[in-house]
Amino acid sequence: MKPIHVGICGVGTVGGGTATVLKRNCEEIARRAGRPIVVRAAASRDLARARAALGEGVELLDDALAIARHPDIDIVVELIGGTTVAKDVVLAAIENGKHVVTANKKLIAEYGNEIFAKAQAKGVMVAFEAAVAGGIPVIKALREGLTANTIEWVAGIINGTSNFILTEMRDKGAAFADVLKEAQRLGYAEADPTFDIEGHDAAHKLTIMSAIAFGIPVQFDKAYLEGISKLDAADIKYAQELGYRIKLLGVTRRRPHGIELRVAPTLIPAKRLIANVDGVMNAVLVKGDAVGATMYYGPGAGAEPTASSVIADLVDITRLHTADPEHRVPHLAFQPSAMADLPILPIDEVETCYYLRLNAQDQPGVLADVTRLLADGGISVDAMLQKEVTDDGRADIIIITHLAVEKNVNAALAKIEALDSINGKVVKLRLEHLNG
Amino acid sequence: MKPIHVGICGVGTVGGGTATVLKRNCEEIARRAGRPIVVRAAASRDLARARAALGEGVELLDDALAIARHPDIDIVVELIGGTTVAKDVVLAAIENGKHVVTANKKLIAEYGNEIFAKAQAKGVMVAFEAAVAGGIPVIKALREGLTANTIEWVAGIINGTSNFILTEMRDKGAAFADVLKEAQRLGYAEADPTFDIEGHDAAHKLTIMSAIAFGIPVQFDKAYLEGISKLDAADIKYAQELGYRIKLLGVTRRRPHGIELRVAPTLIPAKRLIANVDGVMNAVLVKGDAVGATMYYGPGAGAEPTASSVIADLVDITRLHTADPEHRVPHLAFQPSAMADLPILPIDEVETCYYLRLNAQDQPGVLADVTRLLADGGISVDAMLQKEVTDDGRADIIIITHLAVEKNVNAALAKIEALDSINGKVVKLRLEHLNG
Repeated sequence: MKPIHVGICGVGTVGGGTATVLKRNCEEIARRAGRPIVVRAAASRDLARARAALGEGVELLDDALAIARHPDIDIVVELIGGTTVAKDVVLAAIENGKHVVTANKKLIAEYGNEIFAKAQAKGVMVAFEAAVAGGIPVIKALREGLTANTIEWVAGIINGTSNFILTEMRDKGAAFADVLKEAQRLGYAEADPTFDIEGHDAAHKLTIMSAIAFGIPVQFDKAYLEGISKLDAADIKYAQELGYRIKLLGVTRRRPHGIELRVAPTLIPAKRLIANVDGVMNAVLVKGDAVGATMYYGPGAGAEPTASSVIADLVDITRLHTADPEHRVPHLAFQPSAMADLPILPIDEVETCYYLRLNAQDQPGVLADVTRLLADGGISVDAMLQKEVTDDGRADIIIITHLAVEKNVNAALAKIEALDSINGKVVKLRLEHLNG
Repeated sequence: MKPIHVGICGVGTVGGGTATVLKRNCEEIARRAGRPIVVRAAASRDLARARAALGEGVELLDDALAIARHPDIDIVVELIGGTTVAKDVVLAAIENGKHVVTANKKLIAEYGNEIFAKAQAKGVMVAFEAAVAGGIPVIKALREGLTANTIEWVAGIINGTSNFILTEMRDKGAAFADVLKEAQRLGYAEADPTFDIEGHDAAHKLTIMSAIAFGIPVQFDKAYLEGISKLDAADIKYAQELGYRIKLLGVTRRRPHGIELRVAPTLIPAKRLIANVDGVMNAVLVKGDAVGATMYYGPGAGAEPTASSVIADLVDITRLHTADPEHRVPHLAFQPSAMADLPILPIDEVETCYYLRLNAQDQPGVLADVTRLLADGGISVDAMLQKEVTDDGRADIIIITHLAVEKNVNAALAKIEALDSINGKVVKLRLEHLNG
């Protein structure tokens, strides 16, 4: 049968990995897809490097838009990254009636609505499994595997760099800055790590999963982000004493009046399987009303893991591009005409449990004052841990709350911080029980 | 849009759960599928019970074959179980041009080849996500999510009853028989538990995953089965001392000359995530050459988790039944014309690591004799643990081997058991490192 011709835009790590895996497993992939899938052309700014990565027999161009318009290309694979050239290439490919596969989480999280509308109008598919959690087929699980369910929440460890740093901080009791240097040396963190450690990358992925889980448009601009750069090693230790681990967790949860969408360092009970996902690995836990909790675990980055997802999309398209466009799996899991208009809730409206760390003068009545202010705010205490008094006459007090609304917690904390007996700011972290 | 009409054959736990979830989530499911999915008719031997489960408005019949021939039914859901009536119903439904969804692992593992050939000829789909690992969409992951990969192995904890029993034996140090009684009292084990505890159920599921992973026909008759009923609590304790947990593990692995396909109580390093899957939960770990190791975790049984998978299949069929049959996702992941003829290897040819427990007289030279016999058989020792001598002058010796071929191990064990200094049979368990 006639091969499917792929054009790769951007021959970096993932582009090279995709070509390598397509070549190495060409027979196995053709047995599954029903026809061979071959790289016909590629565009790169560095043609010598691209030639080395792709070998002979692949047409090389220096203009990605030429791939999008290439008459012999069936599917365009966009691996350029960013939202400028990449967006132009994706829209041009769709305009030219080509299916698109992309690993670009930023592009989908920020411009997905526009891209999918255009693809729907043109009757082509845009697939993006590689954009979320690298090699883990979690988009497929959410979009197709769990269609019976009303999804209640999705929680994910979806940034390997941050998870590596947090794992090392816990295991070695080390400070954030030291571990970051180590991660950079090992190649697990970029020279400028902001995008990973401040939660942008995780929020892009979470935004996409939120849309697919709840049938809402992608809305990255409404996501709440908090990174791990200010996380204190002391809190990791205290959390552990109380039976929790701290992870950079993306949480999106259905509430009666809207959807929570937030990324922040979060406590999870140590006994949960997802709390034991360490190092650069990723995992996504999904709670559906029928199935309960299911979890998807694997490598969240890397050349061949990401290529695995890119190629799964290529095989999906190869298998199903003859299907009537109205009957294909919808881009965002729900039919475009059936999108819900549930708003993303502001962080003030979020309801969760909290970990609070106060530094207090060792004097009578402090605890009474603090617990009264919490009670006045409707916040009830689940556990409390008072640490030994230090030489300066101060002591750390750690409080774990039951469910509370964020704005109430913030209001109570403002009053607590105003007490003479409390030193400095209260550390506030969110805590998720993630009960199945 | 016109609803898809479903006919349910067998209104037991899963049938009732399927109807309940289809009704409760009808709006969410229609938003995803593009049209409503409704139960139009059902067949049951107990019409009063079926009426109670399904409510009014569903046509009830006492003959499942009448559902397979019903002119208004688009998809037949077979939940009868077994391989007699169930097989007739599935074949009759296909004959009548209807798509089929089944949760029947025994039927697919034993008669899948015949059923899929007939479905292919008739241009209909037969879907069976619910047959493996209950609510976990692992068939979809293997068949569609990991298509880029040459699958190296699949290892699964895929029988909740056995996993519950093993978890309790470990946590409470209890004997198999006592925990089985407890499991029966809690409803986690059947009155006749043979099918679960002797590995048949796990082997059915593993047979199906093996076919999909490697592109071979289903061959349940070639699977090797060993149950947990003879497992000694002492071995669970010794394994733990050595850093391992014992699980009833299904393993299917590609070797140069064939495929390993085996279910047996197996040691796994305690630090692996899958070793921490406890109670009735299921998990499947898949090693692909591109992605590395990914894991899928969730409830392996129960009314609504299983219904979740049945309905996911209904939505898949609803979305894609307009696709040209040649281009749909193949039943066993690979195109029927591209099946491999790799044989299933006999257990003698399996290569893995081993845990051996010997009961020896406390006399000089025993260890030397044992290790010499192992070395003569080409079996090298990874770790050894000698327990204290008991009052009768005997001691347990535990040996963990590196990779060895089963027939070589058996030959060496026969010689070891023939030594005067060794009491009784040597306990032999397999051990899998499951390295990503």
